[in-house]
Amino acid sequence: MDAIDFPTHASALQARYGAEAEPPPAGPWNEVIDCLLQHRSVRAYRPDALPDGTLETLVAAAQSAATSSNMQTWSVVAVTEPATKAALAAIAGNQEHIKQCPLFLVWIADLSRLERLGQAVGRTLEGLPYLETFLVAALDAGLAAQNAAVAAESIGLATVYIGALRNDVERVAALLGLPPGTMAVTGLCVGYAGEGVPALVKPRLPQSVVLHRERYATGGEAAGVAAYDRALSAFSAAAERTAYTWTDRVMSRLGKVAALSGRDRLVDALVRLGFPLR
Amino acid sequence: MDAIDFPTHASALQARYGAEAEPPPAGPWNEVIDCLLQHRSVRAYRPDALPDGTLETLVAAAQSAATSSNMQTWSVVAVTEPATKAALAAIAGNQEHIKQCPLFLVWIADLSRLERLGQAVGRTLEGLPYLETFLVAALDAGLAAQNAAVAAESIGLATVYIGALRNDVERVAALLGLPPGTMAVTGLCVGYAGEGVPALVKPRLPQSVVLHRERYATGGEAAGVAAYDRALSAFSAAAERTAYTWTDRVMSRLGKVAALSGRDRLVDALVRLGFPLR
Repeated sequence: MDAIDFPTHASALQARYGAEAEPPPAGPWNEVIDCLLQHRSVRAYRPDALPDGTLETLVAAAQSAATSSNMQTWSVVAVTEPATKAALAAIAGNQEHIKQCPLFLVWIADLSRLERLGQAVGRTLEGLPYLETFLVAALDAGLAAQNAAVAAESIGLATVYIGALRNDVERVAALLGLPPGTMAVTGLCVGYAGEGVPALVKPRLPQSVVLHRERYATGGEAAGVAAYDRALSAFSAAAERTAYTWTDRVMSRLGKVAALSGRDRLVDALVRLGFPLR
Repeated sequence: MDAIDFPTHASALQARYGAEAEPPPAGPWNEVIDCLLQHRSVRAYRPDALPDGTLETLVAAAQSAATSSNMQTWSVVAVTEPATKAALAAIAGNQEHIKQCPLFLVWIADLSRLERLGQAVGRTLEGLPYLETFLVAALDAGLAAQNAAVAAESIGLATVYIGALRNDVERVAALLGLPPGTMAVTGLCVGYAGEGVPALVKPRLPQSVVLHRERYATGGEAAGVAAYDRALSAFSAAAERTAYTWTDRVMSRLGKVAALSGRDRLVDALVRLGFPLR
């Protein structure tokens, strides 16, 4: 795609790193990169139906992501039924937007398909029970989901990931009829953003904190995090009417085991779902 | 982004599912979706340098992906030094393209930054030692990497993921100076595709196999997989000069533990790298 002088180039970079930050140097830019940079998570949806063929287009985009050794160890369950969405919302800490959005995609790490394939040819797949293979499946599902999210946003739809499905992956499996060897990695709400709840681009850490050249280095980290604490505090005060720093956020999310909301039992749940994690 | 009648719309869908397949119904389409559908992995690179600002643009795209609770539990190490690329290529089963590409990105699941953050404020983060939190970090890294891959392809660069870094994550950590609480999830070659090695879009499983409506269902799976075995056999015969089915591929990749190339020891390696996976 040709590089184009986009009017949003500088402002998109500035928004991504916060109004006070020094943005990274300008590089190539086009409509695709613009779409990626404009991402924001949306937690309020109109009930409006999606255009014909949207689901299939999102799945084609998802399937176009790379997949480890072309094994395609993922599936997606497209949920539109209100009762199922309500039950999934309850698992995910009563997130109302799961009920609101017209399409809720549940991204599945799926080794069951390969197991069935082995059975069909009379082979036991020795590699299936390993943590490595579970990780491949979870990453495959994640890459697929991200392509679908990008495709959705490109056509004017909004999205938000719902990691809180992992609060109880066994109940999710029961609700969706998932066979052994599958696990819901994350959900994704898809729909038109609701009115009155403007979702703004959330600033991220300075590049100096996440990007390491040749070797990992933490020299600039403390200063970068301090600047980011200020940036996120200013952003949250304006956008969410409650000021918090990044440090606050991380402490509340990981400080106590109770904040994992059941996900501290994920190993046991995965074993019961057919992932020995050897 | 406005829907546009792209000349490549029908042909891109057809290529993605194979010449003999019935593609999914046409839905919305635009330059972003076109870019996603055109993905192919490239395993031969020219040494040409990348345009100024490319790395920073890819990282800005990566940081624009969603991240669980905005915790940003990933880092990326940008490797350009030939000696480091050669050492990484050796770990990854001597994949020559790692040495060829001008930029090799190593995507890191990074909980060490949060641990340092806790130390700075005198807090122990109880949630860090759990499998759930490792999974969050690995998925964060995956979503970030996928956005970078999409951005790279949009500006005419080629990419290929290198999961084989997980053959020996401890050696990768030593090479890149990674601290405890970090793990190389995957690599990504970035550069201009080499000449003489046309990379074609690889067909994927029919949507009927990976997309489930409301509940997981396997009714059409056997027929879909049989059709895909034929499609991939035809594709590989033409594109890779050696015909193999999907079933062949899966059996050779997961049939025997030896084919995991050391990744069967990932649990022990992760524990030593500071992930108790509780």
